Amino acid sequence: MDDIAADPSHPRYASLLMRHRLEVAAERGMLAGSAMIAHGRGEAFDYLLGERTTESARLASLQALACLHHATRPVLSVNGNVAALASDAMLRLAAFLSCPLEVNIFYRTPERMEAILSFLDERKAVLGLDVEILGHAPDATIPGLKGPRAACHSDGILASDVILVPLEDGDRCEALVNMGKTVVVIDLNPLSRSAKLASVTIVDELSRALDTMLEASETVKRLRIDPSYDHHAVLNAALQEMLNALEED
Amino acid sequence: MDDIAADPSHPRYASLLMRHRLEVAAERGMLAGSAMIAHGRGEAFDYLLGERTTESARLASLQALACLHHATRPVLSVNGNVAALASDAMLRLAAFLSCPLEVNIFYRTPERMEAILSFLDERKAVLGLDVEILGHAPDATIPGLKGPRAACHSDGILASDVILVPLEDGDRCEALVNMGKTVVVIDLNPLSRSAKLASVTIVDELSRALDTMLEASETVKRLRIDPSYDHHAVLNAALQEMLNALEED
Repeated sequence: MDDIAADPSHPRYASLLMRHRLEVAAERGMLAGSAMIAHGRGEAFDYLLGERTTESARLASLQALACLHHATRPVLSVNGNVAALASDAMLRLAAFLSCPLEVNIFYRTPERMEAILSFLDERKAVLGLDVEILGHAPDATIPGLKGPRAACHSDGILASDVILVPLEDGDRCEALVNMGKTVVVIDLNPLSRSAKLASVTIVDELSRALDTMLEASETVKRLRIDPSYDHHAVLNAALQEMLNALEED
Repeated sequence: MDDIAADPSHPRYASLLMRHRLEVAAERGMLAGSAMIAHGRGEAFDYLLGERTTESARLASLQALACLHHATRPVLSVNGNVAALASDAMLRLAAFLSCPLEVNIFYRTPERMEAILSFLDERKAVLGLDVEILGHAPDATIPGLKGPRAACHSDGILASDVILVPLEDGDRCEALVNMGKTVVVIDLNPLSRSAKLASVTIVDELSRALDTMLEASETVKRLRIDPSYDHHAVLNAALQEMLNALEED
């Protein structure tokens, strides 16, 4: 790790820590070739957001948590970048929700699946959590997607009513929405297809968004779904924050 | 290469081609660990720019070319990403300007220097161009920088009066400006320290900016430095384009 990443008081600490996690994951074979580029795109949007959790992102995270909490069959989808950046937080959230994690990746190869699954198993053992991890034996497909990227578990993603898909690509997000699911996306680009198509979109950096949800899971007594939650207003608020950053300069 | 990257009519062709070049360069050991992330950040800003050369970027490219053309000792600085993405265009520009290319990288190791130098030598031979390539034997340092990243050639970067440093980090840009040089930067983030500090900043994707310069080198009869060129106005115009993209949504 870069020297300054070892010092939590450094202003770039969070950013450097995430890069370090990606480097470790890349060495373990967990990442697709496009993983680092995708992360850099996120960094640019986070820069415009001021690298902080905005009020609208906090609202979105609370709504997302409430939707997952009140779901009949919630599931958390994990791809290579999510496993690299936030395995512990995802496992903790799954434990709170008593729901499975399902490894579901865009560029699916047996080697990458195995690398991600074994990393999650390791972290699960370290944290001592009782969480079901799926992805090893897909027996169903997501309608509307072609090839290996459609593969999923019938008792996981296929049967879910509410699904958290952080850092998801537009086609898959659309396919899940078309299945009638409540789709929660975490995406720093408020203009992305995933951000627009999702039921609830958290425009925040992945680990900050998960921290907001985990903190609320411990501190909020009653998680309520807000019936007046306005997806488009929340997205516009994120856009407005970025506009302000560009204008203030 | 991804299938669609083989089809120039595909809307993502240019973007996928650049990713492919980075992957090839990574395999050859030319890139630093942060290279892909940096590229992704650029992609996000290019997305806001509409992935096109704006009028203000064109103006900046023409001013940059004129400054380099009228320089006494112009030099083109090349780092890992620049070599990966645009070696041919950089070599052609150096040939037009009859000036050296100098490989100058932030995370300097003998292995990376060798990988980049040998790639440039290969491309130079393929293109049949007579261009001096420096970087192999630095005998001077850039004042104000520490460690290996300060190393440069006394008859290259050190002696230059006008220098093109595409995709340069803020500290190095600042050090070059402090040496009294005319510094031309190509940077998709108009808010970056490099973009602000440079004498001329082209807010455009690297290969598009170089194409603009190369085309002008063939078609513009007299390259004139515009004495009324307004660096800040050009940067603001780029910012305004991005604001428009966010607002139009």
